[in-house]
Amino acid sequence: MRVILVAGTTRTAEIDGISAAGASRDLLVHTPSADAEILAYGDTVRAPVTPVSPTGCPTPAVVTRAVRELLGFDLTVVDGGLARPTGAPTVSVGARPGGDIREPDPVQTAPGAFVAARRFGRALPDDRVVVGETVPGGTTTAMAVLRALGEDALGSTSSSLPENPLDLKERVVEAAFESSDVAPGRAAHAPETALRAVGDPVLAVAAGLAAGALESGTEVVLGGGTQLLAAAALVRHAGVPDRATLATTSYLAADVSELEEAAAALELDLAVTDPDFDADGAGPLTAYADGVAKEGAGMGGALRLADEAGRLGAVTEATRAVLDRVTGDDADDAARDKSRGDTGDGR
Amino acid sequence: MRVILVAGTTRTAEIDGISAAGASRDLLVHTPSADAEILAYGDTVRAPVTPVSPTGCPTPAVVTRAVRELLGFDLTVVDGGLARPTGAPTVSVGARPGGDIREPDPVQTAPGAFVAARRFGRALPDDRVVVGETVPGGTTTAMAVLRALGEDALGSTSSSLPENPLDLKERVVEAAFESSDVAPGRAAHAPETALRAVGDPVLAVAAGLAAGALESGTEVVLGGGTQLLAAAALVRHAGVPDRATLATTSYLAADVSELEEAAAALELDLAVTDPDFDADGAGPLTAYADGVAKEGAGMGGALRLADEAGRLGAVTEATRAVLDRVTGDDADDAARDKSRGDTGDGR
Repeated sequence: MRVILVAGTTRTAEIDGISAAGASRDLLVHTPSADAEILAYGDTVRAPVTPVSPTGCPTPAVVTRAVRELLGFDLTVVDGGLARPTGAPTVSVGARPGGDIREPDPVQTAPGAFVAARRFGRALPDDRVVVGETVPGGTTTAMAVLRALGEDALGSTSSSLPENPLDLKERVVEAAFESSDVAPGRAAHAPETALRAVGDPVLAVAAGLAAGALESGTEVVLGGGTQLLAAAALVRHAGVPDRATLATTSYLAADVSELEEAAAALELDLAVTDPDFDADGAGPLTAYADGVAKEGAGMGGALRLADEAGRLGAVTEATRAVLDRVTGDDADDAARDKSRGDTGDGR
Repeated sequence: MRVILVAGTTRTAEIDGISAAGASRDLLVHTPSADAEILAYGDTVRAPVTPVSPTGCPTPAVVTRAVRELLGFDLTVVDGGLARPTGAPTVSVGARPGGDIREPDPVQTAPGAFVAARRFGRALPDDRVVVGETVPGGTTTAMAVLRALGEDALGSTSSSLPENPLDLKERVVEAAFESSDVAPGRAAHAPETALRAVGDPVLAVAAGLAAGALESGTEVVLGGGTQLLAAAALVRHAGVPDRATLATTSYLAADVSELEEAAAALELDLAVTDPDFDADGAGPLTAYADGVAKEGAGMGGALRLADEAGRLGAVTEATRAVLDRVTGDDADDAARDKSRGDTGDGR
């Protein structure tokens, strides 16, 4: 069992009001690098930011890390166009940071990264992989990609903001098609074209990985929301028919009314997991129950794994422990520095 | 517990007769990338070679991987100047492939990589790390570095070849000093100078990591032979006095008569572990008992961990399972493709 986090950036996120992670430019560009470190080490290592939204909602990476500490799965971070260094080990498939999709040709590395990721996905030795993403602004590019493919079962994508800025996203997607040679629906069966013209590099890598893994007989769990749904659409348009699972959170599912229908249309089994963050004792995690963040960094996939292992009830406490560590809320910082959780069983 | 593998290259390895891995240029340049993949995935993924010496001795990476499957430790691969792509996730600290030390200024990235690795080592959250290396030709550059520092307790370094080509190594080291501004002993207390003038990028990164980890209170196990001894010397010359452990194999210890004395001079506790590869049932691993390879890819450190966990007796069988997988010796290749060992406990 391996969880693969695809971490990268698109300048589309810099558009004012698009992303919860985009509250400051620093947070925006460093969040994927920080998320990767949190999954790899249980804390930030090189990244100079702690990804907590302005309203205090912590990055979903702390949840995925908590599940990793509970279950001990392998992790591979794939560089989907990181804009800042990360201390997490990463695999390169040639992706570079994506441009603003309102500009012409924003993701020139997408076709190459899709092909290289697909080859890498085929070579992975695992029986089962969970693919997750971290890319601020990614729901907007995912919406554009679904339109480019002509996949209209999903009217719009979710948002990390409690109030989905749908009008703004519509305008951005419209501008993306205006500046591109591709019209809505005209990139059907041409995933690389859709990704390069109106997508982002994380989506290119996630879709390539999923396609390659499925082609080699690996069970694939897409751990995430509407961005992973877009990845699944890309996999189908690349001619890969094998069933996969979309594993997401109850918060995301509550936000997307057409989720079940969209998943079924893409031949995906849907697994929705509720971590019960509105219960007593969830502390800052109650922000999730208020509709902030909702998903990301493989959270839905990790929760699914925790549920399968019968450890779902332990996630809140484990996540709060990770969160205390990441935000430095411990009583004793010096002790904290050398008391992180392990993920293996060989302690 | 984290094992850190520093993987990279030096063109010094291309000198005829220097390295067991250097039997063919392909094997030479791809071995570190393949070793990293074997540790990360239990098999090669992107690397086009299987690192087995011409006489049939498998890379020590299969031993370290076998211990990983037994114990489940975390792994971080740091790029110490890889010359070919690897499918293993890697952390970059700016190291590039090293040049032939007979040429002037062969390792220009060494000072920067040493500093960045030291900072990274300081930031690592672990209580304890094992640092290992994979770099064909590395014992020759290690010998030159020890001379540059004026560390003469060790007359010469070990070799992956059963007959250590000492005359050849002496000539190479002599030529290195001839083409450099640094004379033997003149780089004392200047580790970056020694590394850049006559070293290799892997040694720069391994020494930097160890120095930084020790400075932040992390327990450091140097898992390897005379190259890790050179790394320890660099750490001391960088002004870091904290005790560390050198954990190596009985095969390496048998080859280096002054090992105990050299380790003591550098304030290192010495741990020598015998995996008993000359016993019945060791198959191709008996090559180790014949003095081939001896050490590498963190093998001595991994064996130490296995011994501490009471699992040393399980290493031979686990290693043979990894080896069958890596060399494709199974009866059923199709089944093999999706039946690798996991390393976590969350299966």
